[in-house]
Amino acid sequence: MAKRFPWLGRRKPTSRLRPRRHSDLPVNRVDISELTPPLERYLAHAAYIQLSVFQTLGKAVASAPTTKAKEAVSRATSLILQRQQAIVVELERLGVDAGEAMEPYATSVDHFHNRTLGSDWYEMLMTAYVSAGILDDCFVRLAEGLHGDYPQRMRTILGGQEDQELLATELSAAIDTDPKLASRLALWGRRLVGDTLLIARSALALPENTPATDERLEPVFTELIADHTRRMDDLGLTA
Amino acid sequence: MAKRFPWLGRRKPTSRLRPRRHSDLPVNRVDISELTPPLERYLAHAAYIQLSVFQTLGKAVASAPTTKAKEAVSRATSLILQRQQAIVVELERLGVDAGEAMEPYATSVDHFHNRTLGSDWYEMLMTAYVSAGILDDCFVRLAEGLHGDYPQRMRTILGGQEDQELLATELSAAIDTDPKLASRLALWGRRLVGDTLLIARSALALPENTPATDERLEPVFTELIADHTRRMDDLGLTA
Repeated sequence: MAKRFPWLGRRKPTSRLRPRRHSDLPVNRVDISELTPPLERYLAHAAYIQLSVFQTLGKAVASAPTTKAKEAVSRATSLILQRQQAIVVELERLGVDAGEAMEPYATSVDHFHNRTLGSDWYEMLMTAYVSAGILDDCFVRLAEGLHGDYPQRMRTILGGQEDQELLATELSAAIDTDPKLASRLALWGRRLVGDTLLIARSALALPENTPATDERLEPVFTELIADHTRRMDDLGLTA
Repeated sequence: MAKRFPWLGRRKPTSRLRPRRHSDLPVNRVDISELTPPLERYLAHAAYIQLSVFQTLGKAVASAPTTKAKEAVSRATSLILQRQQAIVVELERLGVDAGEAMEPYATSVDHFHNRTLGSDWYEMLMTAYVSAGILDDCFVRLAEGLHGDYPQRMRTILGGQEDQELLATELSAAIDTDPKLASRLALWGRRLVGDTLLIARSALALPENTPATDERLEPVFTELIADHTRRMDDLGLTA
């Protein structure tokens, strides 16, 4: 399986490369489109999540170790804000006030934001890399269930990788410089998954909260976690 | 003299409208282009200042009183980051590493940022409105001394007003809702001017630091303060 950021591989010591644990498992493709919420809800939730990622990176920028790092993360932040604004434009095309539409998601996403912000530059970058990675994946997949050309439009808006590449470059360089960071960030990455999947779950249109529902969701989460594992691998970290 | 944001005037109680104190003074136009620093220095300093404004607004977004306000200020932040990125592109066109080029300005601008951040949402918005307003004015004027089509290009990059309008709308609404804010924010605005003019001064190419130099600068500062007074007037505040 090709790496998402093959150029990162060159920079990593071989000892940090680990076999990909999920790569040989057959993945059940689920029809996630049955779980897609109504368009307005989808857009508003996605837009508020981007705001949360922006706030994480905005805080990270303030604690950047160098001006170069500050500039790189500002670039990633700009891309995320442009993504957020593009989703807001989609809301406005529906005649919806974006601020009001996002309101119902503020409490849970703010709570998630506070729990997952991280205590320093490295953890904040990991949060933006790991959580935003999982949630963007989730919303790109959910877009399949939207009507008209929305699936393609949302893939274009949410599918950009440049912000993730910028964050991966910073994180990878930091881990190369201080190998002790690897275990701390691997731990933090693992800690983020639970909270992030709860937000991903809340984005789905679930008919009822029965055990059967959760069973149905498992393949969705399996896919999201497989992508997450790939992102951690790209940093040379165990998911 | 026309207001910069004439629509704001309609929303303000008449009692808050004050006569414009500078509007009848003849303004000496100075040839500020003699004070323009070399292109790379100009661009790097301007880019780092935009990063500082972005950090102020990033922090403000986290403490926004409503989701609507959060969305409006995120929009302003996105515009400022796009402006910053546009300046970085200009630096890269010169073959310069933006991170390294900005480095010499980090200490003084970070110091300025910490002194002027403000203690709550309203003060942070005022800082972005007042300080960024003065500094953008300063850099637009300094651009006159750049060669080729740089004066026009920098006017295009720095001259956008939409971010200032978004901030003015938020601030004006807040003052309308709580008139006691007016005196606090007027005071804060006055407090910001000194620190901001010091940064503006540091952006100029000064031959020597003699009393004669400061005399020569006075008309420059008079113009910047006249624009500042207009911006405060637009909020119904005394400068």
